[in-house]
Amino acid sequence: MIIVLKSNDQETIAELQQHFSNTHEIFVHHNRVAIQGITAADLSDSEREAATELINDVPKAVQGSREFHPEDTVIKTKHSIIGGDNFTMMAGPCSVESEEHVMKMAAVAKANGATILRGGAYKPRTSPYSFQGLGEDGLKFLRRAADQYNMDVLTEVMDDEHVKLVAKYTDIFQIGARNMQNFSLLKAVGKTNIPVMLKRGMSATVDDILNASEYIAAGGNHNIMIAERGIRTFDNKYTRNTMDVGVVPVLQKLTHYPVIIDPSHASGHTEFVTPLALAGVAAGASGLVVEIHDDPAHALSDGPQALKPNEFKELSDKAFAIRELLTTGLPVEQAEAGR
Amino acid sequence: MIIVLKSNDQETIAELQQHFSNTHEIFVHHNRVAIQGITAADLSDSEREAATELINDVPKAVQGSREFHPEDTVIKTKHSIIGGDNFTMMAGPCSVESEEHVMKMAAVAKANGATILRGGAYKPRTSPYSFQGLGEDGLKFLRRAADQYNMDVLTEVMDDEHVKLVAKYTDIFQIGARNMQNFSLLKAVGKTNIPVMLKRGMSATVDDILNASEYIAAGGNHNIMIAERGIRTFDNKYTRNTMDVGVVPVLQKLTHYPVIIDPSHASGHTEFVTPLALAGVAAGASGLVVEIHDDPAHALSDGPQALKPNEFKELSDKAFAIRELLTTGLPVEQAEAGR
Amino acid sequence: MIIVLKSNDQETIAELQQHFSNTHEIFVHHNRVAIQGITAADLSDSEREAATELINDVPKAVQGSREFHPEDTVIKTKHSIIGGDNFTMMAGPCSVESEEHVMKMAAVAKANGATILRGGAYKPRTSPYSFQGLGEDGLKFLRRAADQYNMDVLTEVMDDEHVKLVAKYTDIFQIGARNMQNFSLLKAVGKTNIPVMLKRGMSATVDDILNASEYIAAGGNHNIMIAERGIRTFDNKYTRNTMDVGVVPVLQKLTHYPVIIDPSHASGHTEFVTPLALAGVAAGASGLVVEIHDDPAHALSDGPQALKPNEFKELSDKAFAIRELLTTGLPVEQAEAGR
Amino acid sequence: MIIVLKSNDQETIAELQQHFSNTHEIFVHHNRVAIQGITAADLSDSEREAATELINDVPKAVQGSREFHPEDTVIKTKHSIIGGDNFTMMAGPCSVESEEHVMKMAAVAKANGATILRGGAYKPRTSPYSFQGLGEDGLKFLRRAADQYNMDVLTEVMDDEHVKLVAKYTDIFQIGARNMQNFSLLKAVGKTNIPVMLKRGMSATVDDILNASEYIAAGGNHNIMIAERGIRTFDNKYTRNTMDVGVVPVLQKLTHYPVIIDPSHASGHTEFVTPLALAGVAAGASGLVVEIHDDPAHALSDGPQALKPNEFKELSDKAFAIRELLTTGLPVEQAEAGR
Repeated sequence: MIIVLKSNDQETIAELQQHFSNTHEIFVHHNRVAIQGITAADLSDSEREAATELINDVPKAVQGSREFHPEDTVIKTKHSIIGGDNFTMMAGPCSVESEEHVMKMAAVAKANGATILRGGAYKPRTSPYSFQGLGEDGLKFLRRAADQYNMDVLTEVMDDEHVKLVAKYTDIFQIGARNMQNFSLLKAVGKTNIPVMLKRGMSATVDDILNASEYIAAGGNHNIMIAERGIRTFDNKYTRNTMDVGVVPVLQKLTHYPVIIDPSHASGHTEFVTPLALAGVAAGASGLVVEIHDDPAHALSDGPQALKPNEFKELSDKAFAIRELLTTGLPVEQAEAGR
Repeated sequence: MIIVLKSNDQETIAELQQHFSNTHEIFVHHNRVAIQGITAADLSDSEREAATELINDVPKAVQGSREFHPEDTVIKTKHSIIGGDNFTMMAGPCSVESEEHVMKMAAVAKANGATILRGGAYKPRTSPYSFQGLGEDGLKFLRRAADQYNMDVLTEVMDDEHVKLVAKYTDIFQIGARNMQNFSLLKAVGKTNIPVMLKRGMSATVDDILNASEYIAAGGNHNIMIAERGIRTFDNKYTRNTMDVGVVPVLQKLTHYPVIIDPSHASGHTEFVTPLALAGVAAGASGLVVEIHDDPAHALSDGPQALKPNEFKELSDKAFAIRELLTTGLPVEQAEAGR
Repeated sequence: MIIVLKSNDQETIAELQQHFSNTHEIFVHHNRVAIQGITAADLSDSEREAATELINDVPKAVQGSREFHPEDTVIKTKHSIIGGDNFTMMAGPCSVESEEHVMKMAAVAKANGATILRGGAYKPRTSPYSFQGLGEDGLKFLRRAADQYNMDVLTEVMDDEHVKLVAKYTDIFQIGARNMQNFSLLKAVGKTNIPVMLKRGMSATVDDILNASEYIAAGGNHNIMIAERGIRTFDNKYTRNTMDVGVVPVLQKLTHYPVIIDPSHASGHTEFVTPLALAGVAAGASGLVVEIHDDPAHALSDGPQALKPNEFKELSDKAFAIRELLTTGLPVEQAEAGR
Repeated sequence: MIIVLKSNDQETIAELQQHFSNTHEIFVHHNRVAIQGITAADLSDSEREAATELINDVPKAVQGSREFHPEDTVIKTKHSIIGGDNFTMMAGPCSVESEEHVMKMAAVAKANGATILRGGAYKPRTSPYSFQGLGEDGLKFLRRAADQYNMDVLTEVMDDEHVKLVAKYTDIFQIGARNMQNFSLLKAVGKTNIPVMLKRGMSATVDDILNASEYIAAGGNHNIMIAERGIRTFDNKYTRNTMDVGVVPVLQKLTHYPVIIDPSHASGHTEFVTPLALAGVAAGASGLVVEIHDDPAHALSDGPQALKPNEFKELSDKAFAIRELLTTGLPVEQAEAGR
């Protein structure tokens, strides 16, 4: 149950905490107090009277819910603002391949509007015999490239033991799709104050995503964004996964966390990346995370889905233009001329 | 195999037809001759020499393929041009409910850029005890409303016996998702010259769609468009289906038929229809087909997914604006200002 | 709502029919009267008093439901009894290829316990250029082969126009997976009194199947069996479909119609047919329908999934043995010896 | 490539290792040497001549493949033999709830043929606010109960940090479905010599499972079994997941590891557990892992899918009987009497 109080009713909040915090999970956000497992009958008369609204039907992932936290979460890093009315471009190579290469990719990313540099130093590969990433060296190269271009770093952390190490280099943790329900890892990043991009698992329902995010929030870290990167369906002959673009407005209704689109993993093929990216922007996503490479044929991983610099420029131009059009409201004459 | 000849080499085309048409399926499109089940060794020397290119790897759905028919199919009806660089809006009620009502909806559709009026007179309902449509009366009402507003009619035909009857009233046949592999029905509409909108089945792969379209083309009717209306996946708690927006560029690569998005059936909920529609436009769809109703709560079918007139206006304005932006190329300053 | 009366209370049944049949769908089965869209408040005092039980929560597919019709449906044809405690083997070639061939296959089927001969004369092929079946000639050959071996015929009917023609030759209609929601066809076979095997669509939910069966029942034909033949999932590299063996007990709980397993289409590969068939029997299916061919490599359709005669013999022996074991109860000593 | 040598040709094996082990992944099993990324042209003349067979097409998960390791893996624990011709019953509560309770459940399991006691001490729950297990206390209780009844312990390990701790108490590690691609965890258990039951992820393809198993094998631990526990599909109204019984023969063809069925998670409902379990046995599974509880309504987790002791007895009796029937070959008279 969520008890909505008058704003700044610190007294009732204190009363509720004293009343319930020994026996129930209790969360406070401004004038909202969520208490798991109680009903109105459990409240005292004074508590009930102080409430301006009682919301009974609360999802298990309460801290991530709009009912508990109506306003958008806006995440601020050194170089980026993510969520709310902002639109954030993130780009970089799939794997960090060398210092020189990631430096070059950072330049391309920055020149086309990206403020966040992505790159993998630890790679979750389906086969143990595939390239597993450069490890800490990769983290160092990525950090230097981002610093050079005044960007933030986004990189994957694969297990709870590495959280401390990766934290030394990154501005944002990425939790990969295969680890979306690795609860030990979620708990570990939840104990840091570093923002987390949680990627949707290949067959994760909307509720699964929200519950996974709650593992992070439960540790005290509320700087969470959720990334759609395609789901598994019956049809995977021409694309690697099926991008569920509808999850953007669905998540935006249910949660206050920013929703990001990863068109690279969703499509798996360069030629389909831009249409999927633009679809995500048109559906209202708060940002894109795109894989780029100057020589995809020789990329150490996922080359077939990496955009070349000029392709990324085109994507980026169109993406910002669509976002601008949707945010500012469109000139009526222009819309009518279009017919 | 597809044999590409010099343009206007009628002589070799005649030779190939004489050589193979008794024993093989043979199709001609301008300077391209597709012959199923042969290899280069089956050609005579003169045939081989006349070829400027030999394409060996041809899909079963040859007539629908880009290899056989590289240029876009553009379908012309009395009031609409569908495909190519055009963008077509189609709207109307799920079911035709009365003459007065469909007339009102036609006015709303037309006022917001639609040139095609959709509406069901025969409804494929999951239960035999649900409202099954007004039948021929519905067709008459729909026809009158379309004529009143200078629009084309799009309506579903559910079985081969009704093809003749529906043909008297409609400008475009709709084949519903549940009938996408009703091959008898596909053959029946393939024998007419009325354009067909083929809706993707709930679990149809891209190849399934193309093969189904070939049943229509095999009868001689090449005025085909394909509509994505959401597929079945593991996640259907918040949306009725999962819209596979990636199928738009995939189909555009493989086939020359226009690709249409139906955001109403894909989402199943009003609040998600517009984001899905815009995603479809941004991905490059040639048109939208949208369900509208002035009083969704009392609609005879599918009310929860119908847009009200003002909601449809907003969708339409934004859809045309995004299409305009993508087609005309975007002003660079505007794109950069967006950052 | 279902009103359960004392057995043989014809008077109240007549009263209910008079009261409701002009305004509501009403169905009677022995002492049970199902009336759609009413509540207890709509009953007269005498009607309410005559009820021994009122069941409020009735599925849309009421006639197929256990609530309305608690006892198993048992379908009797000339040579077979399907459902209840019976176990029925059905076998034959995918397509009827010639009179001689289907005669040979009938001999194999019969010799191994089959009482129903399956075979396709009209084939729903994904491509219009694939072999479409022998048509009426195929039906004649199939009929003669079945008669020769005292078997029943099971064959697919693909459209409502052909229902009359196929009815002249078959003992059981098959509705194929692609036509499971071809409601015109379902209505057409529902008006006959010939038993129907309804195959589950590739992405049909349990409720979809039951609603489809209700289209047949609504026409007055209650001799329905349901066949599981594999569904579409994300994994189809090694099997054609994913056999949903769990649907057997689920359907048996919800409906009184016999449930049949088609392991041939579920697996798509000979080597996996027998394990899937036995799994279906162990889960409680009322029968199997299996594709057989003496020379699978040269079959006109679906050769890769056809069992050779000796393979079918092995399947059949094991299937009957497992069924026997489950039906008769197992000797305790034998079970314990197995450990 | 796999090079098959005459048995006991140690000389060539040594030559191959010297030739390739610095530059390629190389694996030896008896007379088979698998070397990743080479072709016949890379072999010396003497190496090529020593080969009795060269297998070019080897899956990435080479150590798990039948091509590399043709004979069944048979895993021996103190009280159980798993794989080959053996059939193994595993049972116990979902969560360890108390020492007394797990002791009671061990008695039930043992009395009905189980030699392995399952139970969760660390529970991967979708919500962070649900019961997370008793932790090390749970492990202790489980160990004592197993010892009391001469059984082996099977319990889940959720992260690489806990591998050492859990190893102190368990005989078999369970890797849960959500962690199937937690590669850090797989590597960690791969470095132990404790057998591992790897549960299939909710949307894991057959290749995904095999690649995941290879992460364990790559560390040197080859005592692996694979458990099917249901996959995610479009239909989950009546069962929690869809049990893919066909994966049993598919895996048995591709890999030498034993395949186990978990009917409890596959169905999610008591009433469907036994039919699914028997289906798995009939399809050829090497064992079952079943959740049992004496008071399911008050179980701390997953009560709705737990069998009561008498239900488990019935399942077990039938499962052993079917296994016996399939293994020993069936008495022909009995099979024919069944018709």
